[in-house]
Amino acid sequence: MSEFDWIDRYLRPIVRAPGASGLTNDVAVLRSDGPVIATMDTIVEGVHFLSTDPIETVAKKLLRVNVSDILCKGAVPRDALLSCAWPAEFSESDFAEFCRALGEDLKQLKTSLVGGDMVRTPGPLTLTMTLTGRCLADGPVSRSGAQRGDIVCVTGEIGHAGFGLEDARAGRQTAAAGRYHVPVLPGREIAALVAQFATASIDISDGLLSDTAHISRTSGTGIALRLEDVPFAQAAHTAEHALQQATSGDDYQTLFTVPSERKEACLEAAQRSGLQLSVIGTVTNGSSVSLSFKGKPVPLPSRSGYTH
Amino acid sequence: MSEFDWIDRYLRPIVRAPGASGLTNDVAVLRSDGPVIATMDTIVEGVHFLSTDPIETVAKKLLRVNVSDILCKGAVPRDALLSCAWPAEFSESDFAEFCRALGEDLKQLKTSLVGGDMVRTPGPLTLTMTLTGRCLADGPVSRSGAQRGDIVCVTGEIGHAGFGLEDARAGRQTAAAGRYHVPVLPGREIAALVAQFATASIDISDGLLSDTAHISRTSGTGIALRLEDVPFAQAAHTAEHALQQATSGDDYQTLFTVPSERKEACLEAAQRSGLQLSVIGTVTNGSSVSLSFKGKPVPLPSRSGYTH
Repeated sequence: MSEFDWIDRYLRPIVRAPGASGLTNDVAVLRSDGPVIATMDTIVEGVHFLSTDPIETVAKKLLRVNVSDILCKGAVPRDALLSCAWPAEFSESDFAEFCRALGEDLKQLKTSLVGGDMVRTPGPLTLTMTLTGRCLADGPVSRSGAQRGDIVCVTGEIGHAGFGLEDARAGRQTAAAGRYHVPVLPGREIAALVAQFATASIDISDGLLSDTAHISRTSGTGIALRLEDVPFAQAAHTAEHALQQATSGDDYQTLFTVPSERKEACLEAAQRSGLQLSVIGTVTNGSSVSLSFKGKPVPLPSRSGYTH
Repeated sequence: MSEFDWIDRYLRPIVRAPGASGLTNDVAVLRSDGPVIATMDTIVEGVHFLSTDPIETVAKKLLRVNVSDILCKGAVPRDALLSCAWPAEFSESDFAEFCRALGEDLKQLKTSLVGGDMVRTPGPLTLTMTLTGRCLADGPVSRSGAQRGDIVCVTGEIGHAGFGLEDARAGRQTAAAGRYHVPVLPGREIAALVAQFATASIDISDGLLSDTAHISRTSGTGIALRLEDVPFAQAAHTAEHALQQATSGDDYQTLFTVPSERKEACLEAAQRSGLQLSVIGTVTNGSSVSLSFKGKPVPLPSRSGYTH
């Protein structure tokens, strides 16, 4: 079967948006009632996911890493374009399963597939998604707006995917492995919270410390994190145990800064939306990230995150 | 050097659009004053380009195959997102050269790079671009609007890239090889012509016959092509020589249909814009493509195009 047959049989059924024209046109029409943003993420077999990962979890990971980027900017996901570079050794039933899972997750995350490309590759399975989002404020929240005195907030829990990667590598089918395979995103409500309260924002993909450093560097401020306040996957009794979890990747939670005078309003809004939100630090005068654990300074580790 | 350093050093200098925020944000802001469309194309080393192709021509091919998709829909290119899956054996100077050439062509084609992703791969160089375009009419021209009696038009010349692929494979540095490496697109003026006159449109990437068949199938009409009227790269003295050129790929010219009563107006507008335009056939009652050469029917070849 040709690429065209595969598109007909498996991709077309998961495409519903009018702008996709049922994948019969060369281009997709993007919806644009308001400021539209776009993100693009590529995942490569053997680099961003394991060859042994089930194909349906790969589909969901591809979508979710992109949705995470959109939500953390104060926007809701809209239209997706998908590029599959498909190796010959992957079967038609693999592709069918990939599309079924992707379709399920697109529906779950209120996102539409509108177009893309499908090619063959002599290399590893390589998947790219471009995802647009509609901003709930006038534009996306940047990485650069953190101000001295702001509080630093994080959604959900940190470190599950790091443990999950170890489990997945060892072939252990644990809950953590499940969270490594299919990232658990903060609820869609995070977009409104970020749009309303955040001065700077990022999603945690490379590790808590690494992504905190991105905000610090881009904003030109220091950020002091209190490791004992971070909602780690495993309760951290030592700074080492905290650092292990703060430097593992693939959390896909949102880290953002909020003016201190809006702290209570933000926490209340989070609670009303059912979002788990923790205040874990403060934006400072400095120019880099500094760490403490139960009041004592902790040196920055040489490796601040997970580099794919 | 890390992916971040490479982005800083080579990609950031070719990024100028305000919506890119200098690549410091996780997302790009897309411009949207009017109907916005998007296309996505992936090219893989060894599949869509040769390992021996110069890296600067690969950069330009990636951009141009996407621009071709936008222009043929009656739209002008706008914002590009780039994903590079970069093999370890490609050097930093390769990437520098890739970015220099891409920057040059972005400027030439009035297109802005606004974001993307950069990852490493154990496989072949794999490049994906998502490109948006602003429609000059109310929306993109479809593949499905051809009506019986319409004339069939094509820009430029057909078959250069097919000969060029042979030359490139044999290591011959000919003008044709140059056109295989860096597609020669119709001028940007084709967007206005298509927006004003076309009932259906497509860019010729898989071969003239193959892409004519897409219009025929999607529109539910027949299309009769007169091979002697096709502006082939090499003057075709036999039907066989014509078919060879009509089934080679990578032309990246625009094929479109126009109501017969608007033929003269369309040809005059093309001439005023400096566009080379040829009338090569008619939309018919049938349901497939039929061919003739100097008045005699020509059977459809079993292979209608170049499948990558």
